[in-house]
Amino acid sequence: MMKIDNLTKMEVAALTDINGGLNLTDGHARLALSNEQAEVIEQFPTLFHEASRRRFADIETEAHRVFFDTIGQHTAPVGTGRILSCYSSTLATDIVARALPVGTKVALLHPTFDNIADLFRTRGLSLTALSEADLMEQRWPSAVDVIAITHPNNPTGLVTPPDHLRSLAEHAARAGQTVIVDAAFRGQVRSAQYDTYAILDAAGVDWITFEDTGKLWPMHEMKIGMLVFSERHAAAIEAAFAESLLSASPAVLLLVRELARDWAAGGFESARALVERNRRIVSDEIGRVGLELADPKSEISVARIQLPAGGPDSAKLYREMVGRGVHVLPCPPFHWANPEEGLRLIRVSLARPSDAVEAAARTLASTFAELA
Amino acid sequence: MMKIDNLTKMEVAALTDINGGLNLTDGHARLALSNEQAEVIEQFPTLFHEASRRRFADIETEAHRVFFDTIGQHTAPVGTGRILSCYSSTLATDIVARALPVGTKVALLHPTFDNIADLFRTRGLSLTALSEADLMEQRWPSAVDVIAITHPNNPTGLVTPPDHLRSLAEHAARAGQTVIVDAAFRGQVRSAQYDTYAILDAAGVDWITFEDTGKLWPMHEMKIGMLVFSERHAAAIEAAFAESLLSASPAVLLLVRELARDWAAGGFESARALVERNRRIVSDEIGRVGLELADPKSEISVARIQLPAGGPDSAKLYREMVGRGVHVLPCPPFHWANPEEGLRLIRVSLARPSDAVEAAARTLASTFAELA
Repeated sequence: MMKIDNLTKMEVAALTDINGGLNLTDGHARLALSNEQAEVIEQFPTLFHEASRRRFADIETEAHRVFFDTIGQHTAPVGTGRILSCYSSTLATDIVARALPVGTKVALLHPTFDNIADLFRTRGLSLTALSEADLMEQRWPSAVDVIAITHPNNPTGLVTPPDHLRSLAEHAARAGQTVIVDAAFRGQVRSAQYDTYAILDAAGVDWITFEDTGKLWPMHEMKIGMLVFSERHAAAIEAAFAESLLSASPAVLLLVRELARDWAAGGFESARALVERNRRIVSDEIGRVGLELADPKSEISVARIQLPAGGPDSAKLYREMVGRGVHVLPCPPFHWANPEEGLRLIRVSLARPSDAVEAAARTLASTFAELA
Repeated sequence: MMKIDNLTKMEVAALTDINGGLNLTDGHARLALSNEQAEVIEQFPTLFHEASRRRFADIETEAHRVFFDTIGQHTAPVGTGRILSCYSSTLATDIVARALPVGTKVALLHPTFDNIADLFRTRGLSLTALSEADLMEQRWPSAVDVIAITHPNNPTGLVTPPDHLRSLAEHAARAGQTVIVDAAFRGQVRSAQYDTYAILDAAGVDWITFEDTGKLWPMHEMKIGMLVFSERHAAAIEAAFAESLLSASPAVLLLVRELARDWAAGGFESARALVERNRRIVSDEIGRVGLELADPKSEISVARIQLPAGGPDSAKLYREMVGRGVHVLPCPPFHWANPEEGLRLIRVSLARPSDAVEAAARTLASTFAELA
């Protein structure tokens, strides 16, 4: 297989393409603001002045409380010092990768966003793959220190059901393992919003979770990645955090508070309707050339398209489409332990204006038909 | 010597002190907005909509151009892809620490902000100290791969003169070394604003620089750390960048553009006048108990106070002052290769309202007098 860049490099290439073109690579929301979100932006100067007037700790606790309640995480340790606000969930992941001892054995979900595997490996952790089938059949590995899942998973949209998380947590508690839950896409999917923290704490397991606002709102990277952890990991994570940053922005935390309030008051349903409409558009357009969605039940803001054996693979299709000014992602890097597996899958982002999604899906379909 | 936390941990403790108190730890500007800065914040919704309308690459290039011109860096490689916008200069430093091969030998300025040494060591680089005296006498080390300076230095305020940078660059070019210049405080000091890039490129040396907006404006951590590099380091740095982030915020880049314009149009002089006024306040208050500034000619927004032998050291003074609700920084961590050297130095931030600086300096003076 030819060399494929990591996913973020392809996303950067799309973002900085001097010829413009359609960018359906990253999972960030690149949408027009809703009326309600536009009102929040109009209020931003007021939020900035509020950030100047109040204590950082009070602002942070309040923003955490509103955000965690909005996504169903009522038992999250708000106000205890065990929720750290980072510039991004990638930075939160890197902080954890450093806080874990070099050589830590991690069973990581497969496939999933390649960045998690890259950050873990770079910091000297050792990885084995936990397949989605293993997760769904509750086959938990024993010879590891950490079991790390993405919930819902990116790019498949797989939601770990509460019973499965409970089984994992109880297994890990018995085995002395830590459970990591990367919940960066949780805010998009109602069925993923059961209270993870209640289940983990009830099992008495050590855990680390990532929450994120970056995938929810078209806020031009003004976002917060939250790093949350059980007591056992507090000292190591606090030390790694202090090496990485002093604090996230209190003005952005207040923005998150306002956007979370809107999310709870109808913003979630509006965003979800748009994503589902765009998923149907992609399905319809690719259906004309005999292609199908790989995960028709996924609710996250990206969709995978299954490519049949024999036709062009996703690497070839990707290159050809970039030549036509449309950026999407070939899936080999998601299959971080076995990239070949991703050659028959290609990912498109749905958190885009519908006309952009339609044009990109049409180009994908016609390019596929020509190469097939 | 008893264990002292790293500097950022003490800064976090001050920021999150639930009893409030005076926080003169970090070098971030924690000030009321000037009238002109307040106008920029009022415009923020307009900047946000501009960010939605225009291409990221255009916004980034424009913001870089205005910022680099404002701080005298006319030869910086704006628009070439060799300036990457990061969430912070700490993240830029970590990206470089990862891009350099494990085992790279680095001569790092001493003393300097401990975070640079911590990030480099964590990524497996090997450090030796380059003293400020070595720098001023142009004694450049040979048995290293990289020579890294901070310009102006934090906490001493030492500016590397242009002739010294030229000597360093020519030495490093001959020896095949890379020069790193951390210029995070450059925007505060006119004499540090000669064109570094012209000198480095004229010498034909490989180089990496960090520039930062975080120390200049009271923007609640809405900031950009810029990572700039010569061709040789492009591939490794781009790869490490893509592991860390997709992009900084275009809305924050536009904020930087506007604040840089104001900085060029008088904002610099106003900010500098406040810092100098606060430096005099500190000098006067501590003078009453026989203490003096260690770097009376420093122009950066922090000041070190020299403690005489025999009296309380800075670690003791720090603990006692925290008990009285005033946070400043003991200097041992700045002396990353020999912390004992910092025991007779304590650092206060000057980018604070003058009444806070005065109250903190008075507490420092009275605490010192009681313990002496």
